[in-house]
Amino acid sequence: MWPDFDQTPERNTGTPEITDVSTVVVDGNFPWTIVTLETDAGVTGIGEAYPSPGVHEVITDYLQPVLSGENPLDVERLYHLMRESLSGRGSQQGMGTIAISGVELALWDAAGKILEQPVYQLLGGKMREEVRLYADCHAGEGMVEAALDEQPTEAYEAAAYAKAARSAVDDGFEIVKFDLDVPSGREIDTLARHFDGPEIEHKRALVEAVTDEVGDEAEVAVDLHWNFSVEAAEKLCQALEPYDLAWIEDPLPPENEDAMAQLNRNVSQALLTGENCYGRHGFQDLVEQQAVSFVAPDIPKTGGIAETKKIGELADTYYMTLTPHNVGSPVATMAGVHVGATVPNFLALEYHARDVPWWDDLVDSDEPLIQDGRITVPDTPGLGIELDWDVVEEHRKT
Amino acid sequence: MWPDFDQTPERNTGTPEITDVSTVVVDGNFPWTIVTLETDAGVTGIGEAYPSPGVHEVITDYLQPVLSGENPLDVERLYHLMRESLSGRGSQQGMGTIAISGVELALWDAAGKILEQPVYQLLGGKMREEVRLYADCHAGEGMVEAALDEQPTEAYEAAAYAKAARSAVDDGFEIVKFDLDVPSGREIDTLARHFDGPEIEHKRALVEAVTDEVGDEAEVAVDLHWNFSVEAAEKLCQALEPYDLAWIEDPLPPENEDAMAQLNRNVSQALLTGENCYGRHGFQDLVEQQAVSFVAPDIPKTGGIAETKKIGELADTYYMTLTPHNVGSPVATMAGVHVGATVPNFLALEYHARDVPWWDDLVDSDEPLIQDGRITVPDTPGLGIELDWDVVEEHRKT
Repeated sequence: MWPDFDQTPERNTGTPEITDVSTVVVDGNFPWTIVTLETDAGVTGIGEAYPSPGVHEVITDYLQPVLSGENPLDVERLYHLMRESLSGRGSQQGMGTIAISGVELALWDAAGKILEQPVYQLLGGKMREEVRLYADCHAGEGMVEAALDEQPTEAYEAAAYAKAARSAVDDGFEIVKFDLDVPSGREIDTLARHFDGPEIEHKRALVEAVTDEVGDEAEVAVDLHWNFSVEAAEKLCQALEPYDLAWIEDPLPPENEDAMAQLNRNVSQALLTGENCYGRHGFQDLVEQQAVSFVAPDIPKTGGIAETKKIGELADTYYMTLTPHNVGSPVATMAGVHVGATVPNFLALEYHARDVPWWDDLVDSDEPLIQDGRITVPDTPGLGIELDWDVVEEHRKT
Repeated sequence: MWPDFDQTPERNTGTPEITDVSTVVVDGNFPWTIVTLETDAGVTGIGEAYPSPGVHEVITDYLQPVLSGENPLDVERLYHLMRESLSGRGSQQGMGTIAISGVELALWDAAGKILEQPVYQLLGGKMREEVRLYADCHAGEGMVEAALDEQPTEAYEAAAYAKAARSAVDDGFEIVKFDLDVPSGREIDTLARHFDGPEIEHKRALVEAVTDEVGDEAEVAVDLHWNFSVEAAEKLCQALEPYDLAWIEDPLPPENEDAMAQLNRNVSQALLTGENCYGRHGFQDLVEQQAVSFVAPDIPKTGGIAETKKIGELADTYYMTLTPHNVGSPVATMAGVHVGATVPNFLALEYHARDVPWWDDLVDSDEPLIQDGRITVPDTPGLGIELDWDVVEEHRKT
């Protein structure tokens, strides 16, 4: 008698139906996996899944038949339906969740377009009129060129970091982030995750170069990409204490929240993690143990827009801050904008494509999407952008 | 530079404004406090606050000026604005939260009407097409009459309980709830919260009469109204083990979650509490300690529709069930219907007005709102009902 997620509730008004779901992969600095969700309402929802093998197949071979004929306005019900349908085959974490996340973004875009509402209005309303982005500067200016020239060590010099920081700050970004898990030029056993004095000093000098360059013009964050042991992370944090960093990201491997909580008790800096955590349950231990200060779910990976909002609300009960991870195209980025518009404890969304000159060309607009380090929250229906399909086609991965 | 909750984000489209907020109190079995929120968009949002002294004054004298000129579509921002504005003067719990909750319901109704969307569509979409209610049967049939005749003990007899259960089940309710914290006729020191064998036996016999009457036609729950010590509650639970109750509600006073967790470890029955808890933080310890099986926030008291959905989501991370408390008019009840339509782990909403024959007359409709123990989730804008203002006026408390 009681409906399950696969029973579409009836409506008095005309009920739109999903007719097809598919993906197009764009060859960016990651393989950006654009999800297209067709409806019989004259509207196509556009989403994006985190770049991952298998996602195209899960969406087209598996989720498409599950969703066909369903009402795209029932976004949260269909999220549960997709999870339930994959169930033991991996809907709680990993590729299954990534595929579901990509479709969830497309559902919100479709629902907004059908209802002629911006997505934020379907999430509780707008709290901000613009959303701040922070610039991921990777390993400094010249990293890409250096890699191409097979001279990778050149990239990891203080001057290259400072140059990249200056460029991002001049573009209006108020938080800049750099990789610190980079080679110093010395031979070390990185698998041991221990770093001796000269290694720590190499990283300290990179941070000093950046903070000297930007001063009070921007906050500086660093990313350790899971490469430190607890003791090595503590040592690095102590060395970085003078530089008042915004956060230290992913100091430890991602599986053990107890270790992160231990590190957090022992260091004075704010820690950030979350791009490998799936859904509220993936963040539950981190939040309840107060193991970090910033939670960074990747929206098209962790479960999508609504799940990320719930993660933000969970973090808010412990007065933590939401800073979503983002390595995506403008589609995933706009998902972050609508989350950021509606979650009070949101600080900034990552922007990871400063080295992709045609990132903006993917959007059918004369204006750049990001201006002065911010995106204006759009009042247009759905996610608020339309892709330029000629540019998509030009960079389509075959 | 970064907007606070009191800065209305701009929109490209026409921005509606709140012009007035006030209340009308209806003299039901509680003083139902209807909130009216006027806008310049030709729409009035109708909400309801939990019956409480001071709420009218907080809304009209304090919140009205805070909200005047604000955009009613920014529901969650205005919730935060109201909380921030009351701040140290009691916005986290109690009457301040109750007043804010009442306005929040009216904001959702106004936003839905302005956007021509049912509230559930602004909360993530519909998962159910009807929402189940459970019948609060108080202390059995004849309680009201007995009280009027100054013969209160008559109400607390097994036959009266069975009669009330039969009536509710015949009306289609699938869960019926009874008060068990009722006089046995013996003189005892209730303040001690200890109950001896004959007292426990009196309550056991009441439950047996009800379960014998309804058999498998309905589940039976009991409410203890915070009147037992831990040891007395344990003793009662043991005595009630044969009756397979749906839940045992409020066995202990409401302030101490550790005590509830202790009781929950020691008894086999499912426990329920929450009508005195405010917001996610009010439920945090109960949920994280897994102190109950059912959480029962009162929507127009705990923080409103969106906060209750968040409480449901918090409970869902621990696989607990949402059963909102409700002693309100059809307005508060419809708020529960939209919450129930969108929260997967929702079971049933309380209905507490079976002894108010004109409850349904408050709604401008020829059909009774509750049919066969359920309310159909409406697809009409806002909360989906209009009040009959003549009936409101007739029962208006002056």
